[in-house]
Amino acid sequence: MSTQAPHNTLLIPGPIEFDDAVLQSMAHYAESHVAPGFVKVFGETLTLTRKLFQSTSPSAQPFLIAGSGTLGWDLVSANLVEKGENALVLNTGYFGDSFGQCLQTYGANVTQLRTPVGERHSLEQVEQALREKKYKVLTITHVDTSTGVLGDIKGVTQLVRRVSPDTLVVVDGVCSVGSEEIKFDEWDLDVVVTASQKAIGCPPGLSIVYTSGRAINVAQTRQSPPGAYYASIANWLPIMQNYENNKPSYFATPPTQLIHALHTTLSQITARPISERFDIHTQVSNKVKAAVAELGLKQVASNPDAQAHGMTAMYLPEGLTPPDVLPGLLKRGVIFAAGLHKEIATKYIRFGHMGVSVTDPGRNDVDKALAALKEALSEAKQAKGL
Amino acid sequence: MSTQAPHNTLLIPGPIEFDDAVLQSMAHYAESHVAPGFVKVFGETLTLTRKLFQSTSPSAQPFLIAGSGTLGWDLVSANLVEKGENALVLNTGYFGDSFGQCLQTYGANVTQLRTPVGERHSLEQVEQALREKKYKVLTITHVDTSTGVLGDIKGVTQLVRRVSPDTLVVVDGVCSVGSEEIKFDEWDLDVVVTASQKAIGCPPGLSIVYTSGRAINVAQTRQSPPGAYYASIANWLPIMQNYENNKPSYFATPPTQLIHALHTTLSQITARPISERFDIHTQVSNKVKAAVAELGLKQVASNPDAQAHGMTAMYLPEGLTPPDVLPGLLKRGVIFAAGLHKEIATKYIRFGHMGVSVTDPGRNDVDKALAALKEALSEAKQAKGL
Repeated sequence: MSTQAPHNTLLIPGPIEFDDAVLQSMAHYAESHVAPGFVKVFGETLTLTRKLFQSTSPSAQPFLIAGSGTLGWDLVSANLVEKGENALVLNTGYFGDSFGQCLQTYGANVTQLRTPVGERHSLEQVEQALREKKYKVLTITHVDTSTGVLGDIKGVTQLVRRVSPDTLVVVDGVCSVGSEEIKFDEWDLDVVVTASQKAIGCPPGLSIVYTSGRAINVAQTRQSPPGAYYASIANWLPIMQNYENNKPSYFATPPTQLIHALHTTLSQITARPISERFDIHTQVSNKVKAAVAELGLKQVASNPDAQAHGMTAMYLPEGLTPPDVLPGLLKRGVIFAAGLHKEIATKYIRFGHMGVSVTDPGRNDVDKALAALKEALSEAKQAKGL
Repeated sequence: MSTQAPHNTLLIPGPIEFDDAVLQSMAHYAESHVAPGFVKVFGETLTLTRKLFQSTSPSAQPFLIAGSGTLGWDLVSANLVEKGENALVLNTGYFGDSFGQCLQTYGANVTQLRTPVGERHSLEQVEQALREKKYKVLTITHVDTSTGVLGDIKGVTQLVRRVSPDTLVVVDGVCSVGSEEIKFDEWDLDVVVTASQKAIGCPPGLSIVYTSGRAINVAQTRQSPPGAYYASIANWLPIMQNYENNKPSYFATPPTQLIHALHTTLSQITARPISERFDIHTQVSNKVKAAVAELGLKQVASNPDAQAHGMTAMYLPEGLTPPDVLPGLLKRGVIFAAGLHKEIATKYIRFGHMGVSVTDPGRNDVDKALAALKEALSEAKQAKGL
């Protein structure tokens, strides 16, 4: 039995449902951020973050900073790109636009490589772009929260290493880390930017950034000083290194309760082989996608090879909009999200299936949601005479 | 009876001890950041923040953003100062140095006006500086966490309005908001930067920035674009306005559990006349300072008019350093902080007396701490043969 107050099941693409133990960690009593007890927890949390990324390289570096996922974009843009340098944004929707704006804020010269809604980039298209200009960084959204499109981060990185080996590969993994396989070292990634509240299963408020030695080196050898203070890698690097070496250190007060909660969820996640976690997400995703097809709904992510495993964005039947369907879901205790991609926002809804809703055998969230979706759709069609 | 696990009493100048109800709010079940329930809570929390600052001006604007207090410096530096403009930092210790570095990161031309350790600036000294150059902003630390020096924010603001009326007065209130009186509108302040984990009594992870209409106007009419993305006033302003008007809005996911906790503590704080809160902090501070004097200890903040009411920084007897005394306190269940100001760090300790440790009549934290201090000092002197 959950110790949480009764509530509707949150099945949006983040925040997601949280485990009881994680929420209990949020209520941890006050601690000094530089006292041995907390220093140990923070240090262990950094080490657990390495496991989440299947990374053992000593030159790789995790950063855990109070902030939302968006702060990670500033960390990238203010430290890894200098004024006038080129950035290539593989744009699959809403978040590519915003990451591009962030890069421009710090002086990058941004090229947006767009795809039609619901499609991901072909490697040919990316190769062509890489051959036209020298890019300091390439950014790719792993799972586009606005469309459910899964980016080919492994394939794109291989391509980059072949065509433009020094270009830093920056992955926006806010909606993928914890539900999609990422082999950080093996795939030779440079940065993954993520946040606590999606498939990692910790309440929102932590910006999580994982960096390669190559990226840290770029930050440390840049010509101009970093473009930000709070989002400066130079300010945070010694802090993270000290905490992981069990030494207190101070730049800005860490969010002690959130770090405890992250420690709890990462301990749970890494207690089993992480491949199992990705397998379960894939199985459940396949089930959801089959059920959605059976209801006659089309996914926004049109290519089966490019569909996320932690969420499903589905077009509604012609004549229905999100406000016709979401209240019917809510009446049945289930919360889905409305559309976000502005070109199609009124035509689709999003179902997040990540974390405990997928991995905890004691929950029935996904089956309940699929039953609710079927009923709510049929009710909405009837109401509209469709 | 507290519902918290038994723990040593945290009496450092932040984070502080938290109320049970506040910690329970941290464990709130998952909610969508754009669903009506959370939108209402966030909106109310913004309105409660106005009360905390005794502010009723409709042009004043609170910002509540996932981050530490330090993020507020970026908000000021990236939005209110343009490259090459002058900033005057009234430096009373550690935090003036850092705020100055943050301002420089975004291109400000920084003048540091320093005082000897433990002293605050005279108005004459500030007036002279203001007459030498035109400053876009002046920053003043309200309570210097490293020394316990209380800045004269009311007097300095009056002076600025007389001598250089357009200069924006920016208060670093991280260690003062909630324990020191601030009449934001009446004193004509422009920005107060603070954080959740000190006298406001909410766990760390929220950057809280309160701005005047004058400051917002400067941000909106600047010639160059803002210097940061996550710390951009232009990006957050519509979000805060929408939430306070009970409309969902999205720029980056807010830390939903921390917002609940802030709502709980601000509801508690504003349930009684806020002047009572400041009176209690003053009374307890007077008691602490008298007890410290009775133990023969000198305060770092040498001028009785310039001593904070939420903390006391005290020099140890000659021959003792913090590691001689802090373990004796810990043995008695009390946690104080070591020194932070680098010129004197080995010579003093800091005692935070803020929030529930001061306001909750059911607790005995301060008396317990004073008794422990007396015993720990005497033990340490004996051990050293002093």
